Amino acid sequence: MTKLSNLRKLLEINELDAILIASPYNKFYLANLYSGSGYVFVTNKSQYVIVDARYYAQVKENAKDFIVIETSKINTLENILNRIIREEDIQKLGFEGEHITFDTFFCLNMQLQALMISISLKSLRSLKSEAEIKMIEEAALIGDKVYSHILEYIEPGMSERQVENELVRMIKECGGKKESFDIIVASGERGAFPHGKASDKIIQTGEFVTIDFGVNFNNYCSDMTRTFAMGYVKDRQLKEIYEVVRKAQEAAVQNIRAGVTAGEIDAIARNIIKEAGWGEYFGHNLGHGIGIMVHEHPDLSPGSPVVLEEGMVVTVEPGVYIPSIGGVRIEDDVLVNKNSCVVLTKSSRDLMIVKG
Amino acid sequence: MTKLSNLRKLLEINELDAILIASPYNKFYLANLYSGSGYVFVTNKSQYVIVDARYYAQVKENAKDFIVIETSKINTLENILNRIIREEDIQKLGFEGEHITFDTFFCLNMQLQALMISISLKSLRSLKSEAEIKMIEEAALIGDKVYSHILEYIEPGMSERQVENELVRMIKECGGKKESFDIIVASGERGAFPHGKASDKIIQTGEFVTIDFGVNFNNYCSDMTRTFAMGYVKDRQLKEIYEVVRKAQEAAVQNIRAGVTAGEIDAIARNIIKEAGWGEYFGHNLGHGIGIMVHEHPDLSPGSPVVLEEGMVVTVEPGVYIPSIGGVRIEDDVLVNKNSCVVLTKSSRDLMIVKG
Repeated sequence: MTKLSNLRKLLEINELDAILIASPYNKFYLANLYSGSGYVFVTNKSQYVIVDARYYAQVKENAKDFIVIETSKINTLENILNRIIREEDIQKLGFEGEHITFDTFFCLNMQLQALMISISLKSLRSLKSEAEIKMIEEAALIGDKVYSHILEYIEPGMSERQVENELVRMIKECGGKKESFDIIVASGERGAFPHGKASDKIIQTGEFVTIDFGVNFNNYCSDMTRTFAMGYVKDRQLKEIYEVVRKAQEAAVQNIRAGVTAGEIDAIARNIIKEAGWGEYFGHNLGHGIGIMVHEHPDLSPGSPVVLEEGMVVTVEPGVYIPSIGGVRIEDDVLVNKNSCVVLTKSSRDLMIVKG
Repeated sequence: MTKLSNLRKLLEINELDAILIASPYNKFYLANLYSGSGYVFVTNKSQYVIVDARYYAQVKENAKDFIVIETSKINTLENILNRIIREEDIQKLGFEGEHITFDTFFCLNMQLQALMISISLKSLRSLKSEAEIKMIEEAALIGDKVYSHILEYIEPGMSERQVENELVRMIKECGGKKESFDIIVASGERGAFPHGKASDKIIQTGEFVTIDFGVNFNNYCSDMTRTFAMGYVKDRQLKEIYEVVRKAQEAAVQNIRAGVTAGEIDAIARNIIKEAGWGEYFGHNLGHGIGIMVHEHPDLSPGSPVVLEEGMVVTVEPGVYIPSIGGVRIEDDVLVNKNSCVVLTKSSRDLMIVKG
């Protein structure tokens, strides 16, 4: 019941009597319901899942700690909520303002007999349980297998999209549910786009290829990036950059442990890249939390005061991107421990040269 | 420029001076920008795309009829909007309340010097242009190819998930971008779940299999369902039901043309199913509009007064689902013409028996 007590702590901090949860990822986190339909309603005293007939049996089975209530034409969501509001004397009712649409808020606010207050739940899922860590570990492990297959598979003459399709196929073959986001395959000059989704471009000998992909395993995500060379390295500058990015990534990872701030870790990688003269070509954050969503709290960003805690899982992904030339990014998923960290993505970070 | 003039008609009807558009599908529809970032801002006089540096060059290239403005730390979205609000004397500013989150609304409403009014744009994209119809046609054609491959591919002993994976692979091989929604493969008893996503269940001889999938081609969707039998039909009742559903689907399609209401079409299919005695087992709408999104305006639902118009594309998908036994659904995509309609999905609707 740690998840529910974490949530109730947030209620206390925000001086709320209850919270209405609509986002699929938080409904899944708390009550095992991954759906756009239905609500989780948690008060200081009790917890409910409110769903229509389609979901009732499934939720009853999967959310044993919750009171499950079925909506109907008469027993609407609003009626059910107002009954609980009266029974438990709820004055201040939190909701996920960063998720609920204006129209949904407007309807609820018209009808509910409590003061509705938008709160952010972004920190709710940041400390992972052992079970959650196992899921992310498994997702990362599948990612490693898929990546090592791709190193064998890829050849000059293939399009980026062909490589993407093989990644998707292998993710499923290795037991993943699906890719955890739109896959980036950026070769040659396209490597300069940090978010260069796979295109019809043909991959050529001598080019660098950056692959950024993740695996969804039981609704938990991994996220990894590797850059490698086709046959040989045409551009000496990119080879230099590779070493800088690798060192920056390694140094950041080596310093991750409970107690340091996200900003300190970002600075370690950023300074190495800056000192090598490529600072202006590293234009994004160092990393982000990962779990049910690919991007979760906390960000590893410049100046962030967020203190890393045991049980957080974050990505570490410095990159350097030179317009019209190409780019390099290396990314791992890292579990924060008390005095160190564990890298969950195990693939080598050395510059690999594949058949060219 | 029909799309923009359609939008301006909606502004007029709603007595608005301008509208701020945030949803990726409407930004793509109007200005070729499919992204969570950036806004399209259309006033009675001019039209703008407001994006950050990452998107500026791309939008400048792809949205020739728009004034493209780049945001920066000083030139924020709010500052840009307030400048246009002053220059064009905008009093009433519409926004997509069914899309924008409460928190986004709250920030904009605090800062913008106009009255913000939530409006629904759901009817905006319902009449498809010739170019749009071609995209949906192509998506449907790819779907037909994929389906005919699956009829050859599927065998007893395969899991539903294996069939799903092959569908995904073939969609890409045939030129689709990806599946347009989570694929349904429901065999045997699972056919009774109208939304039975592919599971690990093994497909067996004698069972009915329902496959419901769509193709995303250039951001336009198709959506088709077929039910077929593995080797032979074990359950005579299901064979009867198949014929009822087929007749209901055919009769509905034959009556689709400009001028009839969505409710009338729904009733034609529903009455045939009711008269055959299966009315209570057809629990969903007959169909829905389709285009950039899988579900668009209009719904073909009981009693709907929406009048079908030339250029709408809708699905027609009656189904009958018997708990613990199985189910049947047949679905096509249909283009509404003046005096008739064109079925875009060409696969046979006869009961197919595949190798078992």
